[in-house]
Amino acid sequence: MTNVLFAAETKLWPVYAPLLRAAFAETGLGGITLETDLPPEEVDYIVYSPGSTLQDFTPYTRCKAVLNLWAGVENVTRNATLTQPLARMVDPGMEQAMVEWVTGHTLRHHIGMDRYIHGLGGAWSRIIPPLAPDRPVTVLGLGALGSACARALAGLHFPVRGWSRSPKDIPGVTCFSGEDGLKAALEGAQIVSLLLPSTPGTRHIMTDETFALLAKGAVLLNSGRGALVDDEALLRALDSGQVSHATLDVFHVEPLPEEHPFWSHPGVTVTPHISSETRPPTASRVIAENVRRGEAEEPFLHLVDRAAGY
Amino acid sequence: MTNVLFAAETKLWPVYAPLLRAAFAETGLGGITLETDLPPEEVDYIVYSPGSTLQDFTPYTRCKAVLNLWAGVENVTRNATLTQPLARMVDPGMEQAMVEWVTGHTLRHHIGMDRYIHGLGGAWSRIIPPLAPDRPVTVLGLGALGSACARALAGLHFPVRGWSRSPKDIPGVTCFSGEDGLKAALEGAQIVSLLLPSTPGTRHIMTDETFALLAKGAVLLNSGRGALVDDEALLRALDSGQVSHATLDVFHVEPLPEEHPFWSHPGVTVTPHISSETRPPTASRVIAENVRRGEAEEPFLHLVDRAAGY
Repeated sequence: MTNVLFAAETKLWPVYAPLLRAAFAETGLGGITLETDLPPEEVDYIVYSPGSTLQDFTPYTRCKAVLNLWAGVENVTRNATLTQPLARMVDPGMEQAMVEWVTGHTLRHHIGMDRYIHGLGGAWSRIIPPLAPDRPVTVLGLGALGSACARALAGLHFPVRGWSRSPKDIPGVTCFSGEDGLKAALEGAQIVSLLLPSTPGTRHIMTDETFALLAKGAVLLNSGRGALVDDEALLRALDSGQVSHATLDVFHVEPLPEEHPFWSHPGVTVTPHISSETRPPTASRVIAENVRRGEAEEPFLHLVDRAAGY
Repeated sequence: MTNVLFAAETKLWPVYAPLLRAAFAETGLGGITLETDLPPEEVDYIVYSPGSTLQDFTPYTRCKAVLNLWAGVENVTRNATLTQPLARMVDPGMEQAMVEWVTGHTLRHHIGMDRYIHGLGGAWSRIIPPLAPDRPVTVLGLGALGSACARALAGLHFPVRGWSRSPKDIPGVTCFSGEDGLKAALEGAQIVSLLLPSTPGTRHIMTDETFALLAKGAVLLNSGRGALVDDEALLRALDSGQVSHATLDVFHVEPLPEEHPFWSHPGVTVTPHISSETRPPTASRVIAENVRRGEAEEPFLHLVDRAAGY
């Protein structure tokens, strides 16, 4: 008998309960109890979202793993009561969604779509943009999502530079790492895409100093985490023309407060954290596979490195 | 001594003259004269644009080939005095530009960018679009440009159907051909991209009957030729909601007349024939390669099939 506690927002239960049960059955696992309420000392796995009422992990003494429903874990790792292994969600549906958002908005800015979407008002006014091979783009963060985006952009023939904390090797992408590598990755970039996790080391990675490294009039895309950007520095860069546009999907506070200047700034496009929605059918299979691994005493997938914070 | 006549719009001469001379030198060809004015009976090759004053090819008795500067040749093939071999432009820069336009606008409509570009006005209103694998797209025309676009869309995991007059085989793309194949290619498509040449057989290929085959609320992208679309049928399809949006780069008459309803229709985005601008540096190399082939008595590249009209 294996007991799985579903500890996430109440509204998610009717969505996930049938999908998780189907996914458990698909993996061949029998005797699984999935409930939203179980005696803590009898719980083997916790399917978790930090919006859950479960905030004290201490009584879950038998729990083999906490399986987060989302990719970002900064609201889980800061919970000091959590000593059990923690896995993040690496959902193939989420990766696809992120590639679509990043590639779509990169191409939007690259070919200058906005002027046509707003309309030329009858004027046959042609601006021929440079081709992708002449548009240097940089991706900060080369985890599952960042490297998928970097590969997609390289596939469209953009010259892609990537940067991550630890060295990576991605075909078609010029990879940099460490503090020294950041400057080389950003220098002269015309479109920068942020896909880093939120950690103390990545907080405000985009600030006056790093914005100044980009090509004049560069575009910022942030679908990583709001904390990566110093909002005040971004507003300064927009107002000086150093950054010509920012398309932002993530914010320090979400929902973005109605009075925040980003909403009305002509150089900012706000998308309301839609780039990487976990897709319940594919996410449920990832959860089930980790439970199967736990029961078979195989190593868990996508374990969080608690020291690094992601 | 080889004589090449440059017969295109006057404003193109200062752009192309140095690039063509450099490209001839690169191929190792010597003794080439490139001029805008040469005795017709001494001309070996004509670099051509239909906007040129040269409209009577009869006196060019020695001319081995007419090398068109553009991909579309319908304004050249209808010239009855042209009996010399005709090559269209297949410019790698143009192919890249077309892939960027088609992929960019497909993603724009797919992820529903417009509502964010117009702005949510402070409302954190989330709409999660389906993923690319759940968005059937169809490309009509599988020549150099169409097949490059179909491959790029398949690379982003859209299910791609393609259609062409003669059967084609493109990995990752479900290919249809002939009159019977058209219905199978269009049925239920959510985004349709037109990349056909303009011939009597393709004129008004998108009309009431073919629009009705698409999924309700489909999106039309036309970067092929204006004549492919029956404008009145498109306006009817937009007004009924059968087509939710059309993004058009090419028109029956260009520049699109100021009074044309497309300019102000909320369901239409007009881009002023920017999707496939020939790029002089790469195009010049294609021209030079064909002159080299002519001089070496090798077969020309990109010859037009005069019976098919493209």
